[in-house]
Amino acid sequence: MVPALAGRAGCFTAFEKRWAEGQKRPNHGRHFTDADPASHLSLPRQMLELSKQGRVASQSRARIPTQSSNTEDHPMGFFSKDIKSLDDLFVHTLRDIYYAEKQIEKALPAMIEKATNPALKAGFEKHLQETKGHIERVEQVFEMHDVKAKGVNCPAIDGILEEADDVSGEIDDKQVLDAALIASAQAVEHYEITRYGTLIAWANELGRADCAAVLEQNLQEEKATDKKLTEMAESRVNLQAAE
Amino acid sequence: MVPALAGRAGCFTAFEKRWAEGQKRPNHGRHFTDADPASHLSLPRQMLELSKQGRVASQSRARIPTQSSNTEDHPMGFFSKDIKSLDDLFVHTLRDIYYAEKQIEKALPAMIEKATNPALKAGFEKHLQETKGHIERVEQVFEMHDVKAKGVNCPAIDGILEEADDVSGEIDDKQVLDAALIASAQAVEHYEITRYGTLIAWANELGRADCAAVLEQNLQEEKATDKKLTEMAESRVNLQAAE
Repeated sequence: MVPALAGRAGCFTAFEKRWAEGQKRPNHGRHFTDADPASHLSLPRQMLELSKQGRVASQSRARIPTQSSNTEDHPMGFFSKDIKSLDDLFVHTLRDIYYAEKQIEKALPAMIEKATNPALKAGFEKHLQETKGHIERVEQVFEMHDVKAKGVNCPAIDGILEEADDVSGEIDDKQVLDAALIASAQAVEHYEITRYGTLIAWANELGRADCAAVLEQNLQEEKATDKKLTEMAESRVNLQAAE
Repeated sequence: MVPALAGRAGCFTAFEKRWAEGQKRPNHGRHFTDADPASHLSLPRQMLELSKQGRVASQSRARIPTQSSNTEDHPMGFFSKDIKSLDDLFVHTLRDIYYAEKQIEKALPAMIEKATNPALKAGFEKHLQETKGHIERVEQVFEMHDVKAKGVNCPAIDGILEEADDVSGEIDDKQVLDAALIASAQAVEHYEITRYGTLIAWANELGRADCAAVLEQNLQEEKATDKKLTEMAESRVNLQAAE
């Protein structure tokens, strides 16, 4: 049995008190409060935004895009405190992976550009096409579940992509860079694998085997990509880097 | 063959130029530049640090700690641009997982406190003990590899824990909260699984099967934990939440 939502009012009171005190919630922009379009971003992200606007020195090297400033993907109005049921949690997590997939779609071209090994480059190119298909499938699940397709900010994928960009951007040796790119891509894959695994379990519990079946297709493709990356990591690319 | 480090000087020049211009690198505190101990943190983290110091309103609810202000774990002086070989990348990633394990050690007590399901609570308690063992094994690998045991900031685990804290902190229903905690814990496990998998592949390529064997023990424990969490996610906890 789901217990009564005891303490809910208390939670709101604490939240509203903080709000009334004019304190921004010390978190990462799942809701935005300021007029400045960059204000919801963490400090490094703000720097990146300012850089885009020419307000700080731009960098010449290609960077893996790690956070969108397009609020259409992570609109105001969806607060995680709205999670009252497993169905709410399912929808929230669907929005999380939707945002993540779109960020990955934006990040992959820079990874393709950086990759040297032809097999790795081709693998990333193939995965970019698959990612577009994953986004379409997630949109299909939104439609099946009768909720609007929207993203919510996902600090996890932002952090994973930020780390990928940081490490890969500072390696000159091509083979070492390829090895780092594989590792970064596998971290991305594992995030997707865990989220799709969770969503499938929840969809089944909610009696939505139809949604689970669509999400299962994405999961299987993510697992296949991860397997291919492992094979590359354990063979040619790392062997070259270790020479 | 590893090619000559062509372009290396150019990389340094660009970095130094940015430095000379007085611009902070738009990234996440892998190196720290200011006297303010919180200055290396992202804006939400700065808010959290200020909160700890009583400089903004404190929050009464337990929060999952998501970033340390202890610079001992992520000292100045290790720049990712120092990655010139697979061995450097191996050491860097070992420091990444070392930081991550320590952050997970700090985060687990709050997750234990939040969990309602006795099996889940016991599982988290067991994993906290395992995590302490993982930290010791990583320290052992540092020693075997003759490098100092140090952490480097890991935006990926910070993002994953930040998201865990954000979602779990706003759910009142105990069963839904348990389901969310399982999902968060699985995201953490998958990050560790991918990093240990990578480190093991690299250790073997570097001819350090002894290091790989130690890391393999951590990997197997992480996989076992993830499997148990999947069983819980697919059975009792989610069934209760869906009622």
